[in-house]
Amino acid sequence: MTLQVGIIGLGMIGQDHLWRLTEVLSGVTVVAVADIDRNRALGVAPPGVDVVDTPQALIRSDKVHAVIICSWGPAHEEQLLECIAAGKPVFCEKPMVTSEAAALRVMEAEVAFGRRLVQVGFMRRFDADYRALKAVLDGGSLGLPLIFRSVHRNASVPEGLYTSDMPLNDTLVHDADISRWLLNDEISGVEVRLPRRSRRGKDLRDPTIVLLRMTSGAIVDVEISVNIAYGYDIRGEITCETGVAALPNRPATVISDRHGVRQAIPADFRERFVGAYDQEFREWVVAAGKGTATGPSAWDGYAATLVADAALRAAESGAHEPIRMKEKPRLYDTAATLAKG
Amino acid sequence: MTLQVGIIGLGMIGQDHLWRLTEVLSGVTVVAVADIDRNRALGVAPPGVDVVDTPQALIRSDKVHAVIICSWGPAHEEQLLECIAAGKPVFCEKPMVTSEAAALRVMEAEVAFGRRLVQVGFMRRFDADYRALKAVLDGGSLGLPLIFRSVHRNASVPEGLYTSDMPLNDTLVHDADISRWLLNDEISGVEVRLPRRSRRGKDLRDPTIVLLRMTSGAIVDVEISVNIAYGYDIRGEITCETGVAALPNRPATVISDRHGVRQAIPADFRERFVGAYDQEFREWVVAAGKGTATGPSAWDGYAATLVADAALRAAESGAHEPIRMKEKPRLYDTAATLAKG
Amino acid sequence: MTLQVGIIGLGMIGQDHLWRLTEVLSGVTVVAVADIDRNRALGVAPPGVDVVDTPQALIRSDKVHAVIICSWGPAHEEQLLECIAAGKPVFCEKPMVTSEAAALRVMEAEVAFGRRLVQVGFMRRFDADYRALKAVLDGGSLGLPLIFRSVHRNASVPEGLYTSDMPLNDTLVHDADISRWLLNDEISGVEVRLPRRSRRGKDLRDPTIVLLRMTSGAIVDVEISVNIAYGYDIRGEITCETGVAALPNRPATVISDRHGVRQAIPADFRERFVGAYDQEFREWVVAAGKGTATGPSAWDGYAATLVADAALRAAESGAHEPIRMKEKPRLYDTAATLAKG
Amino acid sequence: MTLQVGIIGLGMIGQDHLWRLTEVLSGVTVVAVADIDRNRALGVAPPGVDVVDTPQALIRSDKVHAVIICSWGPAHEEQLLECIAAGKPVFCEKPMVTSEAAALRVMEAEVAFGRRLVQVGFMRRFDADYRALKAVLDGGSLGLPLIFRSVHRNASVPEGLYTSDMPLNDTLVHDADISRWLLNDEISGVEVRLPRRSRRGKDLRDPTIVLLRMTSGAIVDVEISVNIAYGYDIRGEITCETGVAALPNRPATVISDRHGVRQAIPADFRERFVGAYDQEFREWVVAAGKGTATGPSAWDGYAATLVADAALRAAESGAHEPIRMKEKPRLYDTAATLAKG
Repeated sequence: MTLQVGIIGLGMIGQDHLWRLTEVLSGVTVVAVADIDRNRALGVAPPGVDVVDTPQALIRSDKVHAVIICSWGPAHEEQLLECIAAGKPVFCEKPMVTSEAAALRVMEAEVAFGRRLVQVGFMRRFDADYRALKAVLDGGSLGLPLIFRSVHRNASVPEGLYTSDMPLNDTLVHDADISRWLLNDEISGVEVRLPRRSRRGKDLRDPTIVLLRMTSGAIVDVEISVNIAYGYDIRGEITCETGVAALPNRPATVISDRHGVRQAIPADFRERFVGAYDQEFREWVVAAGKGTATGPSAWDGYAATLVADAALRAAESGAHEPIRMKEKPRLYDTAATLAKG
Repeated sequence: MTLQVGIIGLGMIGQDHLWRLTEVLSGVTVVAVADIDRNRALGVAPPGVDVVDTPQALIRSDKVHAVIICSWGPAHEEQLLECIAAGKPVFCEKPMVTSEAAALRVMEAEVAFGRRLVQVGFMRRFDADYRALKAVLDGGSLGLPLIFRSVHRNASVPEGLYTSDMPLNDTLVHDADISRWLLNDEISGVEVRLPRRSRRGKDLRDPTIVLLRMTSGAIVDVEISVNIAYGYDIRGEITCETGVAALPNRPATVISDRHGVRQAIPADFRERFVGAYDQEFREWVVAAGKGTATGPSAWDGYAATLVADAALRAAESGAHEPIRMKEKPRLYDTAATLAKG
Repeated sequence: MTLQVGIIGLGMIGQDHLWRLTEVLSGVTVVAVADIDRNRALGVAPPGVDVVDTPQALIRSDKVHAVIICSWGPAHEEQLLECIAAGKPVFCEKPMVTSEAAALRVMEAEVAFGRRLVQVGFMRRFDADYRALKAVLDGGSLGLPLIFRSVHRNASVPEGLYTSDMPLNDTLVHDADISRWLLNDEISGVEVRLPRRSRRGKDLRDPTIVLLRMTSGAIVDVEISVNIAYGYDIRGEITCETGVAALPNRPATVISDRHGVRQAIPADFRERFVGAYDQEFREWVVAAGKGTATGPSAWDGYAATLVADAALRAAESGAHEPIRMKEKPRLYDTAATLAKG
Repeated sequence: MTLQVGIIGLGMIGQDHLWRLTEVLSGVTVVAVADIDRNRALGVAPPGVDVVDTPQALIRSDKVHAVIICSWGPAHEEQLLECIAAGKPVFCEKPMVTSEAAALRVMEAEVAFGRRLVQVGFMRRFDADYRALKAVLDGGSLGLPLIFRSVHRNASVPEGLYTSDMPLNDTLVHDADISRWLLNDEISGVEVRLPRRSRRGKDLRDPTIVLLRMTSGAIVDVEISVNIAYGYDIRGEITCETGVAALPNRPATVISDRHGVRQAIPADFRERFVGAYDQEFREWVVAAGKGTATGPSAWDGYAATLVADAALRAAESGAHEPIRMKEKPRLYDTAATLAKG
């Protein structure tokens, strides 16, 4: 049976998902869209797709079995609560919400509903390289993970629009989420160290080093460089007790020419993670078809909110900023187990 | 609009494609299957899929818009001609046919029909690594290709069932097809050299070196090892005038442990080419939906037949065995152009 | 003219250097040795080499043009001052001395003498891989260095003999020295972070993360793992403004077998740095033949003493421990310039 | 005891060896030189080195313990015979001689003398990468070698001076010698195939494919490209029964920048093989000090002569040109064993 989906928000990422659901994936059809700019929605919607006036109307529509939220962050809480109230599976782009209190309200509603409905858009968990890395770790042949070095390099950011908080608010959440998932662990505290600044970024605080202390004692050592010119380069290396496991080079043609023996580096996140986005929705469609969600949960969205807040405090204080999570609702234990698959 | 497909032949590869069309791809649905063993078809067909008595009945069924042929090779000619007679796009697993004369009859029928309908299952053309390699070549920055080294290593073959002709008859056709495609060239002759045999294969002639002389003068230097124990390892390296371009390692986790710093090698062709198979059918569905085919053509199937025949002769003679192709029908020029996309 | 050398201390490293000077290098001959255990010296000394009773006697011998100190650390200060008093070039294994005060006395004596005589055994500066890395950095095409990640992994350490201070006291000095040299910079402070411990080391504090803050603002992010089982793995990666430069894999045979596609990792520091040791002495012989020294200086030995002290404090305090160096004597400016060659 | 050496021929390679023996190696001193251009010898000889009038005078000089021949090829036979008559160890740059008959005369003289004196300048056998590759092969874990692909790429050759015979006459001998050594085998025949020519070389026949048939049945598949612009790139890969072993990338800094993730390629043979030349003479000095030779022998020089002759015939004939070696004198069996060390 084909899953009927409605999309809220048709900015860049919303249009990208619309295209993915329409052209790439099977077993799913987009039946409705809504955007704060109705004209944009009208311009983008393919024939046969309803352009709905409000998110609420879309969520409540009988035609819509499941919802994708790509609106801006501050609108997410209300839309998520509406989806939960309607008992409909919902995929929500990050950030899930913009405050700890909002995250708690979303979790409370979902727990009260009694079944997972919410999936948050941490696509790295669906990337084949990260999955292979996790399989090596979980296999146990290298012993326990002790240090995870996570490197996030971006070719450039829009001057003026991108502020010094954004590496911690927008970028770090990916490294934090993938760390929790790879290490099967939670983050207990954050430190931020600021090296000499790159002159490419003018007033931008770049690069940034973040140390995440995990509950197990493992340390995640994050480098975020958002303006490094040469490409979009995501690296990860885990030092374990008896060996090391790392993400590979991306599989580009090996060229030997006057620049040496070399492989191209992805230009941006779309090129790097196109396969992860496809897989993320492939699995979401299957779970949503069963009325639930199995990917990153509201609990994961809550953890991301806490780590971003703590990192911003740590950048100010220079100190270790602890993170204290509420007790984990049992709903999310099960989800975590399923999501490992 | 969803493409309605019928599948003829539900052996291993047929079942694999059935699964792919049903579970992975969008815009396509399997409506009918046929197998020489009707009970097998009944066991495998999902609910709602017709099990048809004969290939002819399947091809002629009004429900079937396009056909996938996975029967054994000797049956292909008749089924292809039937599809062309019905004006239906058809995907045919290799070998397209088993004799030069049969290949000529298929092309003649298709040319008479006046539009491409036939696609042959050379999936490597859809592999991301080969496509990136071709893009580098076609970009021209390395000059013209002079030597292409194509390496085809297989972990093992079924003892007794796999004969010494099969590296040339079944395996070489992949290297030959990808050579023609990568170099935009045709094969004008074949030589075979037989090195010291591996003791792993008992009576098997393995490994095999094949030199393909291309019309341009370029030489394709093929190593086929079918019993090399360690994995399924496909390599390709093109020496050009001012540089060299090669397929990369597959993107496996980089592990540092007591075996060194290392990356796993695919176990078999399914692991290696799963993405290529998906993409092959993704593009086939789009073209078939438009009533035609854009991938490897009957002309490519014809070329493969000639090279396998010439290689078998060359293994016997030890000499250069020339290949003389008929003049290329204009139908296939267009096709070639489209397929490059 | 052949340089006549005396060696003080014939433990493992002293014997290694004796062999190197005798069997590998040109332009140098060992004429005298001394060891606190005279019988060991008698057993090890090749024919024709004087076994001298005391370090003083060796240093003052007219036959000895230059001295190599491989005695234990607490004896170094006195022997170095004796060499300087005799105006003889001296190579001193690390640690140069064991206290800041001693380091200052050695520098004072050398500055009073007016010419560099002392070279300290930081062999990494002579390693071809590190030199190539520095050449890339100094070339400037990647912009300024912002973060240097230095990884030091050791297969195992002698249980019971190796204590938790030793990663900071003995190992970190190599990372610190190579950082100062690669970045043309000084260390202004140290932080230590202790991740979850490896269970391989019982009571050992392992691994260790050290952050060195450089005067320029660059951060050196050091991982020290001393018991990681799989080999001796030295890695270095420098994030610059417009690119990244890293040490390569060591050039081991690329094997494809059932463990994957792989390269062996060095077993220990001798295998890894044999070429660096040879080159270190090759250059030392040339400079000593001219009555001076050009490699790592007493200033570098002083810096190493400060960083080890600060790191031990930082491991206790958990805080940033600043390093305040004296003003650099002009003697060492020149030396630094020469040493870059 | 220091080995006293005389050098005949002070062209580029002779001067290079003069520098190596004088500045790099221990246990050896150059006492005499001779050159057909006496003024060149006078200009190049360091102080204290005799400039001798004729090769004969140099070889017969009592001061000269061992001889290095870097004169042009046609002069080698006479000089080698003179060295053997004088019972002096002699290092001879390739080609050992320029005809099969001359090679036989040299071997005959050496066999009559009864002890190995002659070493031929095949420096690849002393390269660390090739030695590691041979150790893997000889270790036997991959089974027997079946195919060796040897790739020899040169950035450029002097236009007009470099003729189409030279890849076979001057370059192939290195691939042939290293094949014999790596595989512990002899060459029984040669085929040459000429691909499409590079347009960079005008009238030059380039690249060239050579197939060497070994006595064991193994095939060596050689690519020689002498004008490929991008660098000096020596590659080797051996397909065995249960795995593959290959030369690694040279250990250049891994740079990530706008050209991708990359490592520089050596510019020329001097950069690539500097370590091999050093090691070649290090071992030669030791053996010559004992009055003999252990490296590549006159038998190896003889084999090289035969393969070059056969390759030139094969390029003309297009056919398999067999090589028939005389029975191997026992003198060279022993030598072969020693040389493996």
